[in-house]
Amino acid sequence: MLRHLPFEDLGFAHVDHHRPIRQGFPEVIYCPGKTNEQIIKIFESLAAKGNNVLATRANPEVFQSLAETAKFSKAHYEQLARAIILEQKKLPPSKSVLPIVTAGTSDLPVAAEAKVTAEIMGQRTELICDVGVAGLHRLFDHLPKLQKANVIIVIAGMEGALASVVGGLVSCPVIAVPTSVGYGSSFEGLSALLTMFNSCASGVTVVNIDNGFSAAVTATLINREIEAGSKKS
Amino acid sequence: MLRHLPFEDLGFAHVDHHRPIRQGFPEVIYCPGKTNEQIIKIFESLAAKGNNVLATRANPEVFQSLAETAKFSKAHYEQLARAIILEQKKLPPSKSVLPIVTAGTSDLPVAAEAKVTAEIMGQRTELICDVGVAGLHRLFDHLPKLQKANVIIVIAGMEGALASVVGGLVSCPVIAVPTSVGYGSSFEGLSALLTMFNSCASGVTVVNIDNGFSAAVTATLINREIEAGSKKS
Amino acid sequence: MLRHLPFEDLGFAHVDHHRPIRQGFPEVIYCPGKTNEQIIKIFESLAAKGNNVLATRANPEVFQSLAETAKFSKAHYEQLARAIILEQKKLPPSKSVLPIVTAGTSDLPVAAEAKVTAEIMGQRTELICDVGVAGLHRLFDHLPKLQKANVIIVIAGMEGALASVVGGLVSCPVIAVPTSVGYGSSFEGLSALLTMFNSCASGVTVVNIDNGFSAAVTATLINREIEAGSKKS
Amino acid sequence: MLRHLPFEDLGFAHVDHHRPIRQGFPEVIYCPGKTNEQIIKIFESLAAKGNNVLATRANPEVFQSLAETAKFSKAHYEQLARAIILEQKKLPPSKSVLPIVTAGTSDLPVAAEAKVTAEIMGQRTELICDVGVAGLHRLFDHLPKLQKANVIIVIAGMEGALASVVGGLVSCPVIAVPTSVGYGSSFEGLSALLTMFNSCASGVTVVNIDNGFSAAVTATLINREIEAGSKKS
Amino acid sequence: MLRHLPFEDLGFAHVDHHRPIRQGFPEVIYCPGKTNEQIIKIFESLAAKGNNVLATRANPEVFQSLAETAKFSKAHYEQLARAIILEQKKLPPSKSVLPIVTAGTSDLPVAAEAKVTAEIMGQRTELICDVGVAGLHRLFDHLPKLQKANVIIVIAGMEGALASVVGGLVSCPVIAVPTSVGYGSSFEGLSALLTMFNSCASGVTVVNIDNGFSAAVTATLINREIEAGSKKS
Amino acid sequence: MLRHLPFEDLGFAHVDHHRPIRQGFPEVIYCPGKTNEQIIKIFESLAAKGNNVLATRANPEVFQSLAETAKFSKAHYEQLARAIILEQKKLPPSKSVLPIVTAGTSDLPVAAEAKVTAEIMGQRTELICDVGVAGLHRLFDHLPKLQKANVIIVIAGMEGALASVVGGLVSCPVIAVPTSVGYGSSFEGLSALLTMFNSCASGVTVVNIDNGFSAAVTATLINREIEAGSKKS
Amino acid sequence: MLRHLPFEDLGFAHVDHHRPIRQGFPEVIYCPGKTNEQIIKIFESLAAKGNNVLATRANPEVFQSLAETAKFSKAHYEQLARAIILEQKKLPPSKSVLPIVTAGTSDLPVAAEAKVTAEIMGQRTELICDVGVAGLHRLFDHLPKLQKANVIIVIAGMEGALASVVGGLVSCPVIAVPTSVGYGSSFEGLSALLTMFNSCASGVTVVNIDNGFSAAVTATLINREIEAGSKKS
Amino acid sequence: MLRHLPFEDLGFAHVDHHRPIRQGFPEVIYCPGKTNEQIIKIFESLAAKGNNVLATRANPEVFQSLAETAKFSKAHYEQLARAIILEQKKLPPSKSVLPIVTAGTSDLPVAAEAKVTAEIMGQRTELICDVGVAGLHRLFDHLPKLQKANVIIVIAGMEGALASVVGGLVSCPVIAVPTSVGYGSSFEGLSALLTMFNSCASGVTVVNIDNGFSAAVTATLINREIEAGSKKS
Repeated sequence: MLRHLPFEDLGFAHVDHHRPIRQGFPEVIYCPGKTNEQIIKIFESLAAKGNNVLATRANPEVFQSLAETAKFSKAHYEQLARAIILEQKKLPPSKSVLPIVTAGTSDLPVAAEAKVTAEIMGQRTELICDVGVAGLHRLFDHLPKLQKANVIIVIAGMEGALASVVGGLVSCPVIAVPTSVGYGSSFEGLSALLTMFNSCASGVTVVNIDNGFSAAVTATLINREIEAGSKKS
Repeated sequence: MLRHLPFEDLGFAHVDHHRPIRQGFPEVIYCPGKTNEQIIKIFESLAAKGNNVLATRANPEVFQSLAETAKFSKAHYEQLARAIILEQKKLPPSKSVLPIVTAGTSDLPVAAEAKVTAEIMGQRTELICDVGVAGLHRLFDHLPKLQKANVIIVIAGMEGALASVVGGLVSCPVIAVPTSVGYGSSFEGLSALLTMFNSCASGVTVVNIDNGFSAAVTATLINREIEAGSKKS
Repeated sequence: MLRHLPFEDLGFAHVDHHRPIRQGFPEVIYCPGKTNEQIIKIFESLAAKGNNVLATRANPEVFQSLAETAKFSKAHYEQLARAIILEQKKLPPSKSVLPIVTAGTSDLPVAAEAKVTAEIMGQRTELICDVGVAGLHRLFDHLPKLQKANVIIVIAGMEGALASVVGGLVSCPVIAVPTSVGYGSSFEGLSALLTMFNSCASGVTVVNIDNGFSAAVTATLINREIEAGSKKS
Repeated sequence: MLRHLPFEDLGFAHVDHHRPIRQGFPEVIYCPGKTNEQIIKIFESLAAKGNNVLATRANPEVFQSLAETAKFSKAHYEQLARAIILEQKKLPPSKSVLPIVTAGTSDLPVAAEAKVTAEIMGQRTELICDVGVAGLHRLFDHLPKLQKANVIIVIAGMEGALASVVGGLVSCPVIAVPTSVGYGSSFEGLSALLTMFNSCASGVTVVNIDNGFSAAVTATLINREIEAGSKKS
Repeated sequence: MLRHLPFEDLGFAHVDHHRPIRQGFPEVIYCPGKTNEQIIKIFESLAAKGNNVLATRANPEVFQSLAETAKFSKAHYEQLARAIILEQKKLPPSKSVLPIVTAGTSDLPVAAEAKVTAEIMGQRTELICDVGVAGLHRLFDHLPKLQKANVIIVIAGMEGALASVVGGLVSCPVIAVPTSVGYGSSFEGLSALLTMFNSCASGVTVVNIDNGFSAAVTATLINREIEAGSKKS
Repeated sequence: MLRHLPFEDLGFAHVDHHRPIRQGFPEVIYCPGKTNEQIIKIFESLAAKGNNVLATRANPEVFQSLAETAKFSKAHYEQLARAIILEQKKLPPSKSVLPIVTAGTSDLPVAAEAKVTAEIMGQRTELICDVGVAGLHRLFDHLPKLQKANVIIVIAGMEGALASVVGGLVSCPVIAVPTSVGYGSSFEGLSALLTMFNSCASGVTVVNIDNGFSAAVTATLINREIEAGSKKS
Repeated sequence: MLRHLPFEDLGFAHVDHHRPIRQGFPEVIYCPGKTNEQIIKIFESLAAKGNNVLATRANPEVFQSLAETAKFSKAHYEQLARAIILEQKKLPPSKSVLPIVTAGTSDLPVAAEAKVTAEIMGQRTELICDVGVAGLHRLFDHLPKLQKANVIIVIAGMEGALASVVGGLVSCPVIAVPTSVGYGSSFEGLSALLTMFNSCASGVTVVNIDNGFSAAVTATLINREIEAGSKKS
Repeated sequence: MLRHLPFEDLGFAHVDHHRPIRQGFPEVIYCPGKTNEQIIKIFESLAAKGNNVLATRANPEVFQSLAETAKFSKAHYEQLARAIILEQKKLPPSKSVLPIVTAGTSDLPVAAEAKVTAEIMGQRTELICDVGVAGLHRLFDHLPKLQKANVIIVIAGMEGALASVVGGLVSCPVIAVPTSVGYGSSFEGLSALLTMFNSCASGVTVVNIDNGFSAAVTATLINREIEAGSKKS
């Protein structure tokens, strides 16, 4: 059964063409550890199908190389998110808005990755930035927006306590993203990761350190299902 | 605003009575580190509101003490899940079924905790047990059920690879629960936790080691929203 | 200079008699790793000076052995705090009240150790229990008391976020005590410890896991200095 | 209540203007992870209120960019402390002197951060440098100054034993700062951190690795309260 | 007995000339931590015996320096594998093919090191690249090749689950190589390492992170023995 | 293809009946985390096929319960190995002998698990016990036997150096098993594990801490292939 | 050469009889992980040579079993040190005294192991107990004795700072033994171990956590060489 | 007593002038974390006393700056050891030779630091390089030299097993230095450190990762005492 799913073997990569069909995903390239040549070849293979393409953790040099091929005039580079985006078909916008909340300004790059990922999948997003627990009044100002959401992404480094606090204030699922922001005993995100894992608030689940992409994909999956209604109904 | 939410101060505990209202939760007691006397007092305070009550990680002795009070004739003890359950109002059953999948037989206690938690919140569940990646044919037999679900709980110890494999086979969110099953370099669940965190499959989020309760709450939140439709629509 | 400070050499211990003079401390015995015989001999040596004596982390058996000597009729045992207390001279009570705040009911034993330690040193204390960040409204009810304090002890296990939140709400020093309450990736207090260390709130310092004693001593030192006024003025 | 506290939303940051009022703090920017443009905008927002401004962990390039705006002629850069300082109102000097003690010469940058932080908050400080435990006679020469202090900051890397030794010699609170100085099994400050955490001396509390800023804020909070006398008296 | 084995003392290195005889190995230089001068001298000493020489983890500069000596015209540099290869005697090709399987494209450098190592020892290899568990259908397409092998090398970073899955599908030994590919909680290969170690599939053994060389040597040892038949028969 | 492999669903376990066919394995039960009732039911299901059955990490109580069923008169219990063995068909003995080498006497239980596992799969074994590197002359006495083997299992706790030393003395694959023997900084086998992982000797691969079972299965797979000759020849 | 050294193969142990000859050691049995039967057999084998025998980490039950054999009337049990001692030949006492210094009373069991080990090897010892760095005046009282020693053993748990302080006060080698005394972030001795490793004082070397035996053997080796004079002179 | 020891306060450093007197040490500067200006000032202060001066972990730039002062014409730079050496008085050479043994060529920089340190303190040394346990015959060739030594330094990275093996072959103290040589799970020296710590061979003590300096100081202390004879005799 699985063996008839479409993919293309480039030698150094098995490019998978059924995910966009199956999950409404863009085609995605995770850039680190791949050469510019490999990325361009995978990009070409993916773009040829007419789908949206997203390349994450891309250096400016990668985009430069891609631009020099002059093949993808519609592709653009989001610097803060370190993402290359080729939007070949516009998805209909979500009804509800996905809040992306950060504890500090330094968490912005991860939030930006989450934002471009969610948006290319059709989500409307709102960035609420720098509302960490050391000054709760900043968060409370945004509470009505949070309580209206179907799902929320919370991004925090250092002590990562924001996810627990938000989780205790809302009744929807919260996807927590620890970030590597911090120093000393933050241990490159480990402290925030453990805090989020041990959250006393129900409804909080966690993704890998700095993984804005994965948080956005999961949030989108959830929101789409909600807006579409249950498979069983 | 927050200050007018109802709670009761027992001296050793602030019993919170608005969560059941806000989230459709049962009232919940996490037992470890509390004396039997404390648990019984909190139980009484919660039950008095007429809601469902769930006590997790409860030793048989805790239930024994509770039973001896002769106040909660409807409460019963689920041994495998180590949970005390008092169902005072039956919630309407969910339309869709929540699959709870385990890698091995030894992961059953965590699955049982997830099962009683989801069920007291009205979810219909199905346990699919002992289908770890070392024998994939056992998993594939259950694939149709998995692909019909709105959300899936995957529970695995040792190398924890099952969450990634399931995540790659379905298009709904997967909530992964690492377990402390294993020995040697499994480091009491750390190995499974890291595996799940680094999952290459999109849509996989993770909760704390052995935390079947939290996985069930989140899965229920998601499924309820899906069956209810979006807040915004 | 240092060499003329008084101590007594019991062979297995150098009992230090100048600390009570120098710091207004009770004489203190940390019990783990000592035999009952050793503890009793040290207790006798300390009590003979007429000062207050505190034995921490003492099992009931230790107190039983001590009671059987029939030498310290005024000594009593605090079960929750696991402490033996011999109050031979009552210190004048502090003017201000020291709040001891816990995130959960399971943190009570550590809070109890902090409480008996602070009280034998003359501090008036108030226990505010079970006000963790998953339900902030419980904490906010106690805010006026917290904002009046000279120094606050915050005790939390699991994700330990309460210290940051309190630190952001008050303008006095906060002494944070991580506890070993939790399971899975709480790693016996490590998660709470790291959270507290990485607190974004200023004025938060941290002591060892479960070390209610040390938090109480430091809080008392600070409060005494405040109530006495500066050495320099 | 909290919601009426003043802040300014710059999009990428929620600038908090009530802390200086509430705590007598300077306005503070933690620079890492922020772009030069963001830092300048936050700096402008903070300076506009007429308060003192402190930017920590600032590279020389950050100050260069700030200087090029020609808006803050009074701002200067402390190279060793990596801090930008804008002192718009001079606070009255503290009566007592705050000793800042380091184990080695390599701990100086952390001590310098503590020093500029304490001084902009009005503290008089004295740096006692390179008096680690491998040559105790160097420390003992400074003992009279230490024993006169209301609170002491001790900064040490490598084995971090200095905090325990100082804690045993004085009767005031000691704030310990582990540093990332060292190599091999110092594990970037972890060794010093653990040593300080396990200090047998009472009155020692710990802040994050290399966090001279936080130590200085806490020490200032304590000293101010002492010099002001108790809130309750 | 051991003392009569041949080696050459270069002062900074004891060059061992009996391994090629004993194990059918090439002479091998592990380059990191050695100066170019040292590497060239060891290379000369090894090449002088007429055997094949392999230098692993070699920067291009090392090969450049070697080439400038003009002594080894047959040596060439494999960029992806970071290896210098001097094949002075061609070994007869193995009868069976050694599959080298990777989870992702980013694992290619490690696979390349394994490939050149196995090939200079006479193994015929086949690279099967980018068939990680998030898209199992890509792996299944190659299953017949895997089931025909005498031994398989599986290379994976991130969650490292591929080794378990392959181990469950074949009946020959699997040598698993964790890679440092990944970010955040992959902890530079630790996550993949632990996953592979805790594999539930029998027949899976593990080598050091990124150690393609060692995996290839072991796989070759096994395959040679199989093709040669038992020593005892 | 995979979906037609035979298994039996007991509710709490998917009993897999094709492994014995596919790999010449006994049917195996890993006991920890399973109730006696579950183990007996799985045992019955496996034994009914007429194959050999091995239950590992079994307490004496498990065997006692099994014996009380009076269904498996031929099953016996190996105390040191903590294994229950039911040998229903005797496999032909291997031509070569598999050496199982331990560093210390305390490593014997792991060696015993390896021994019963290998023997029920038809391997002839020889135990060489207590020949750790602190007294190399003990090892050298057994060198001829080691150099004749097709594959060797080396079991060591504490510093685990024996695997490297043996790997340097032989030309066949070495399967290294770290054990949890030791104390202090052996960290329950982690020290031995890391040592073996970083072995400089080629041909050494590693299995999980205390995993004598897995080492024996892999060694048997290798030896069988060698004695059978290559699939391709 | 090595192969002619005497040993005895008991099956489960290779008893080594040349160490006593080579190093002036007693014959030594490390008990954990060995059965009583094994320990008795090894003890018999060792005692038969007429040398002194030392069994370390022995439970009282082990000695009980040994006593019941009625074969070693001169063997006695040191409870605190958990050691069985059979002194068959008395060694001449050392000229100098070996100081064994502990930070706390709880470190006594490790000190006792060091003491019995050193004494059976002929060393005169002096125990200086409970002189940790939180009260340096207790240590300074013993300074003359320390400065006269040829080598010193320092034993400390918790923060382990005593080794650095002693190392800075004397000019002879210091052997540091971290102990597992402590709680919370002492991590069973890891904190003390790291502190000692990062000691700024020269001449300090470290042995495994709680390893009083090894410290005593090394100290004895050093002192013997000093008292005997150089091999070369 | 201690307070009359000579030192010089440079503001950023307390230069200690009694160590050379007390321990026969050179004056030593540990360079990392100090500015060139600070190093030069300390160097001047030390050199002015006429003693030997050693600056460790010095970059070439440090030496360049020092040379440009034209004040220390006799100072020279040892590149491999990264040390600056000013020998103002030649110590008499030791009678015995100190062997410095390394497992690999990559351990040479640490060995070089040990060598220059020991030599400036008057020790005659012999470097035995690249004799790791994967080829024991290389080590055995040097055994007679090792067995003649009073004390031996063993330096090894990766698995670090060499210290145990040497410790089992000689009867003098062995000082083990783990190095950060290796990759993957060597964790920058942690693997070697743990191996050495858990050594089964008696007489092995350990210093910090890469700390050739400290090993040389301790070895010199021991050898000097041996050649001088006991203080007590």
